[in-house]
Amino acid sequence: MTSVDHIWHGCRLATLSPSRQGLGLVDDGVIAAAAGRIVYAGPASDAPSSLDAKQITDCDGRWITPGLIDCHTHLVYGGNRAREFEQRLAGASYEEIARAGGGIVSTVKATRQATTEELVSAALPRLDALIAEGVTTIEIKSGYGLELATERRQLQAARQLGSERPVSISTSFLGAHTVPPEMNGRSSDYIDLICNTMLPQIAAEGLADAVDAFCEGIAFSVDETARLFAKAQALGLPVRLHADQLSNLHGAALAARFGALSADHLEYADDDGMAAMARAGTVAVVLPGAFYFIREKQLPPIDAMRRHGVSIALATDSNPGSSPLTSLLLAMNMGATLFRLTVDECIAAVTREAARALGLSAETGSLEPGKYCDLAIWNIEQPAELVYRMGFNPLHARVWHGTLLA
Amino acid sequence: MTSVDHIWHGCRLATLSPSRQGLGLVDDGVIAAAAGRIVYAGPASDAPSSLDAKQITDCDGRWITPGLIDCHTHLVYGGNRAREFEQRLAGASYEEIARAGGGIVSTVKATRQATTEELVSAALPRLDALIAEGVTTIEIKSGYGLELATERRQLQAARQLGSERPVSISTSFLGAHTVPPEMNGRSSDYIDLICNTMLPQIAAEGLADAVDAFCEGIAFSVDETARLFAKAQALGLPVRLHADQLSNLHGAALAARFGALSADHLEYADDDGMAAMARAGTVAVVLPGAFYFIREKQLPPIDAMRRHGVSIALATDSNPGSSPLTSLLLAMNMGATLFRLTVDECIAAVTREAARALGLSAETGSLEPGKYCDLAIWNIEQPAELVYRMGFNPLHARVWHGTLLA
Ligand SMILES: [Zn+2]
Ligand SMILES: [Zn+2]
Repeated sequence: MTSVDHIWHGCRLATLSPSRQGLGLVDDGVIAAAAGRIVYAGPASDAPSSLDAKQITDCDGRWITPGLIDCHTHLVYGGNRAREFEQRLAGASYEEIARAGGGIVSTVKATRQATTEELVSAALPRLDALIAEGVTTIEIKSGYGLELATERRQLQAARQLGSERPVSISTSFLGAHTVPPEMNGRSSDYIDLICNTMLPQIAAEGLADAVDAFCEGIAFSVDETARLFAKAQALGLPVRLHADQLSNLHGAALAARFGALSADHLEYADDDGMAAMARAGTVAVVLPGAFYFIREKQLPPIDAMRRHGVSIALATDSNPGSSPLTSLLLAMNMGATLFRLTVDECIAAVTREAARALGLSAETGSLEPGKYCDLAIWNIEQPAELVYRMGFNPLHARVWHGTLLA
Repeated sequence: MTSVDHIWHGCRLATLSPSRQGLGLVDDGVIAAAAGRIVYAGPASDAPSSLDAKQITDCDGRWITPGLIDCHTHLVYGGNRAREFEQRLAGASYEEIARAGGGIVSTVKATRQATTEELVSAALPRLDALIAEGVTTIEIKSGYGLELATERRQLQAARQLGSERPVSISTSFLGAHTVPPEMNGRSSDYIDLICNTMLPQIAAEGLADAVDAFCEGIAFSVDETARLFAKAQALGLPVRLHADQLSNLHGAALAARFGALSADHLEYADDDGMAAMARAGTVAVVLPGAFYFIREKQLPPIDAMRRHGVSIALATDSNPGSSPLTSLLLAMNMGATLFRLTVDECIAAVTREAARALGLSAETGSLEPGKYCDLAIWNIEQPAELVYRMGFNPLHARVWHGTLLA
């Protein structure tokens, strides 16, 4: 007699187990969980005999996937940029908007003025929208403080979101998002400030699970980013990078050189960059919401990623300036429609590969024994529906660390 | 003492009243309703004194817009085309998909096999997704039967949806959607069948509020469409048209010639077409969901619409083949992002102008005395948020014909 906490049966599974082909499909599946972790996930016919559970759920043939993972968001911020969107549609130039107090500076200003509690309550509706679609793990970046106190508050707010809702939060310190207005033109000095003061403090407090940066002509150079990454490594923190979004600074290769968990955006990355990322095991996180919203024309090098065997993840990039998106299902549709990712690629990209991008492959992202029992249970006839539909949420129930949440 | 059923106060209004500028904004607004219709909507300061109501709702400063109107959908159908989407992403050609039983023919086959009850229950989750975003009126087309019995069932199912949920349904008979497989190559004969048998029966039963057609190289010619429209007019039914979506057959001018309520899609329409539509008062219904999903590059002539003063409406075009979209808010974002409609244009396009496209301007689409009290109450700080955000539903409550639905 094997005693477990919960058994789900009568379900079809997309296990995402690498030991099975494609999505690792199972027709007549069973999942058993104990102490929040998966004990068994696979065909009913192979399940341990005489399983005994406190709770048993008949899934009536529903599909179960791993809980979804949004591995790139800027969910915590102050202010509201809808007015700026309206002005731009009415013909205002970026310059006019900046002069009217818009742009990222307006978010920085509003975030600096917000308390931790205000940041949490502003982020909760966005978090709830993601969770409602079966998301069980979310990465959240800082980067709208650009000075220690506010960056800390952002990361604290992100951590607090994980106690407000049954969801796992992974944080990234993105102090190097842009140069703060008060240090205009002094990007190198700001990197020094981050390396010497801000990052050591953030690291000492355990507020960041990784360090991120924006390597771009309008932000930080390759050398500045490399200095930051060296410091992160010295402090034992993994790195990730906003790379090659607007131009090719060879950010992909830079990320690979530091063994980054992921390089994100990548519209302008080249074949060499993909080869380097493949060798380093750095995940490509593609962000079609931003591509769509800023009306980018340059597509990320998906074929090169496939050719070199780069792992591909998908995320919302949820942020007020370039991707006010709070639907990971819609990000999947955009990944397919705009970037021509296949259905299997899209589903793996928000589960197994997104876990890899967060360094959480041992914990979540697939239905395998030993991992957290993070599940999304769907009212669908086939997994392709998760990608095909637009603006429709077929979630039946969500399970986080073994707890069923209706 | 004026006695009414319900008063909403403490709200900000986008009345869409043509007597006010832009969205007809009111800062401190009051709405009073009796017998399902608006008695007063406007500034609290101008409200009739001594209003007496059975029910009073304090809106805590929330925004109220007219209930949204989705004026172009194919919501009622059988089958599921997710697999076809998956195959296409995996590299299958349209021909291969057709040979594998996919394409519109597969929807026609599944719809013909479905009972009215099956059609209703398949459509309900889609209807509920639209309603959840504040939609109070939906147009639904037939067009997947292509023979009398199934076209009737589709329209009956559409009517029935209006008794299953508190929502107004407007139906369009779209027998001329495509040539049925059993009459392949005989489009003119099929138009005869529609004019002589199908349409008269549909009209006699009162199943259609309008007659629609697909005028396109792959569907029906201008002459065939004109014959159908002449018959519709003889039967006293208004017409609308799928026009100039994939090529310029001068469908816009054709629609205008018959005083059509609307001409829809219009990517390939020209300046003359817009001039004709303006003269006829024919509404341009733009459908960015289909534009996005089929990756069209040709933009509809929005500037020409503005220049000639053509009324612009927006809709989901919800359908299984080219727009599996069930979010009118997302259609608004696509209208802004892809077609560069302004925020005011997008909001008018799913309220006042959508009502005009359905011939329902006297009944709904703005907050004016005498119209149905159809409201959407929003948790937003400004109307622009309805257009700016992607995959987020800020609806607080919906009111249909005066009844508050939480
Ligand atoms: Zn980002
Ligand atoms: Zn249509």
